[in-house]
Amino acid sequence: MIKIGLLGLGTVGSGVVTIMENNKESIRRKVGTSLAIEKVLVKNLDKERDLDIDSRVLTSNIEDIVYNPDIDLVVELIGGEEPACQYIKEAINRGKSVVTANKLVIAKHGTEILKLAREKGVQVSYEGSVGGGIPIIRPLKESLAANRIHEIYGILNGTTNYILTKMTREGRKFQEVLAEAQKLGYAESDPSSDIEGYDAAYKIAILASIAFETSIDISSVYVEGIDGISVDDIELARELGYVIKLLAIGKRCERGLDIRVHPTFIPRSHPLALVSDVYNAVYLHGDAVGDVMSYGKGAGQMPTGSAVVADIIQVARDIHSGRVVTPSLDTTIKHRVVDINEIENSFYLRLQVRDKPGVLAQITKVLGDNKVSLASVLQKHRLTTVVPLVLITHPVKEQFINKSLKELKKIEDVVSIDSLIRVEEESI
Amino acid sequence: MIKIGLLGLGTVGSGVVTIMENNKESIRRKVGTSLAIEKVLVKNLDKERDLDIDSRVLTSNIEDIVYNPDIDLVVELIGGEEPACQYIKEAINRGKSVVTANKLVIAKHGTEILKLAREKGVQVSYEGSVGGGIPIIRPLKESLAANRIHEIYGILNGTTNYILTKMTREGRKFQEVLAEAQKLGYAESDPSSDIEGYDAAYKIAILASIAFETSIDISSVYVEGIDGISVDDIELARELGYVIKLLAIGKRCERGLDIRVHPTFIPRSHPLALVSDVYNAVYLHGDAVGDVMSYGKGAGQMPTGSAVVADIIQVARDIHSGRVVTPSLDTTIKHRVVDINEIENSFYLRLQVRDKPGVLAQITKVLGDNKVSLASVLQKHRLTTVVPLVLITHPVKEQFINKSLKELKKIEDVVSIDSLIRVEEESI
Repeated sequence: MIKIGLLGLGTVGSGVVTIMENNKESIRRKVGTSLAIEKVLVKNLDKERDLDIDSRVLTSNIEDIVYNPDIDLVVELIGGEEPACQYIKEAINRGKSVVTANKLVIAKHGTEILKLAREKGVQVSYEGSVGGGIPIIRPLKESLAANRIHEIYGILNGTTNYILTKMTREGRKFQEVLAEAQKLGYAESDPSSDIEGYDAAYKIAILASIAFETSIDISSVYVEGIDGISVDDIELARELGYVIKLLAIGKRCERGLDIRVHPTFIPRSHPLALVSDVYNAVYLHGDAVGDVMSYGKGAGQMPTGSAVVADIIQVARDIHSGRVVTPSLDTTIKHRVVDINEIENSFYLRLQVRDKPGVLAQITKVLGDNKVSLASVLQKHRLTTVVPLVLITHPVKEQFINKSLKELKKIEDVVSIDSLIRVEEESI
Repeated sequence: MIKIGLLGLGTVGSGVVTIMENNKESIRRKVGTSLAIEKVLVKNLDKERDLDIDSRVLTSNIEDIVYNPDIDLVVELIGGEEPACQYIKEAINRGKSVVTANKLVIAKHGTEILKLAREKGVQVSYEGSVGGGIPIIRPLKESLAANRIHEIYGILNGTTNYILTKMTREGRKFQEVLAEAQKLGYAESDPSSDIEGYDAAYKIAILASIAFETSIDISSVYVEGIDGISVDDIELARELGYVIKLLAIGKRCERGLDIRVHPTFIPRSHPLALVSDVYNAVYLHGDAVGDVMSYGKGAGQMPTGSAVVADIIQVARDIHSGRVVTPSLDTTIKHRVVDINEIENSFYLRLQVRDKPGVLAQITKVLGDNKVSLASVLQKHRLTTVVPLVLITHPVKEQFINKSLKELKKIEDVVSIDSLIRVEEESI
């Protein structure tokens, strides 16, 4: 029997307990022995729980788990940076293997944690930290191990994808859809980590560190959220043959790695364009395998529980068979994350301009002087003096676009610059 | 150093050699030591090869590999049932682990081979046998291990998917597109195993045996190919909101398992409907994870090579670290594959009938008497005496449809029954 210490009995923790109970027999066959949840760390021992669990296993003292010699495997599902990170290190130091779904801890401290696990001869698995139940971490480490991965594109945050899907389908405003998502439980009461793109940034940093065998400094990842996306942009994207997604990108580029998260125009015919609602997807290109995509529910009690229990099964199987499997260090190679100003992209640019002769000429001159050339121009003629002007550029370094914007603002007949959204087209 | 004996240097074999050479350093880091191709079994030692390989490693004698004590790992890429199966067993008997992409051998003899490997304490991996480079076998065994899998739907044959895609997009006939696919190398000169559905049947049998922890008798799998699909059916499917795909299905059902391969109407909005050309996909539903789909190139030198080299890396890593990893037997549970006559499906039925009053009433009476109720009726009025009549039924057991067809043929004004295609809608 393998004894497990569970840290946290919230949404995912309860899912893990449920799955382990529902599929007990099949799990026992796969591990080769039965699994027992020996102790569960909770904040409040007396809280009413919707779960069939023996109250004697509950504890509010972390020492009952990390200092417990009976426990082989610690499953961390508290979330957040601390004390989760501390507990994980404590468990490893005591010779226990760890399974976690904590993207924040893995993105920020993964290298250190994996190094410690290697020293102590224990395993650390974190399939649940990215993409909920979609098999992605292990396939990237194992099934795609023969490939040099060139690019990863991910829709890695269910909340923002739900909001963008609703805005696209129903033509409703960001704030309105966000409020509804909060009411339905699809967005948290403090949705900033999702909306501002940080959740997706942690996840792409984790995927990129595996794919590019490196350690990614999370502070070097460019992040932009979806709160600035208007219904006008979504409608114009549609007219131009695109959809807007919060895309997490990890690419090899000339001088290092290109890692970023931002709203992105994606061609409507691309498989990622069809990933809707709370679904997540990872699309990648490897030199041998070509293009591969995985798709599924990226969050939630049962999908994330599925990933966590899969990790538990693998680690428990190894413990049971007496195997020593130390995590390989994915940080062999030093890569620089290239500054966003140096990255080339196509851009969608929406301005309000006065409907006068010569305005377009002035604008295109500014752009041309800054090495920005245009792929398409869409001018909406209306019976007003101020009209929208929509431009899509050819790929150009971000710094030139920024310089152009400064100069465009000085043109008298440019009333406002409303949107600047990157377009992913060349390599996707 | 881990020494490999490669059986076969055809398309996939050459891909494996190329990938191992291209990504040598990264593979060495992942394994923990370097890999060497010690011997390669070929038919013709003197053949000119487009490959940078030392001619001294080539041999035409299988004994140089399976009896070679230096070789730790045998990679079987000859294909076909024999002598491949014999060589695999021979290698296992000599204590060597095996990696293979041979769907025929695994579908027919997998249980026996895994049992033998277990006895001898060696590994057998076969990721390349299904879905080319798409990670599917290992994710099903590991990342989704926490789930009770309810259903698997696969587009598992690239040749037939290419042909159906071309027929759909260009309105061209089966024979014409097949001839073109053969010219382009997308279909073999003898395409029967692809066209008739057997290739997909081997693959779904392999996936189902893992998902349902059982041994599938391949002869109990119902198989129907795409050679009967007409452009009319494809066009009518489109009008009714479907696309036609060669679908491989593995489901749990009331009295056992429902495993089959046949052309199928799929709702146009379903993710599988968008899998085009030579792409493959596996869509499954697990009790915890919900719906998950993986998508990628299902065949070819480099994609299949990617899967084979991934297996080589995993097995070599285990051999290098001295781990003994014996395959778990997936055959614990006895399931019966339910006869197709007992399976319930909706059906698309296309007939030619005389355009006379009372004909539809006669037809619906026959159907009703046989428990077949209709979900929709499409009658095309034309300026001819014989018109097409298209029916879609509610789910009904196959035996009742077959009985109905026999009786419909006897109605004088039913000129011909042109098509009967299953519709997947309820559970997909």
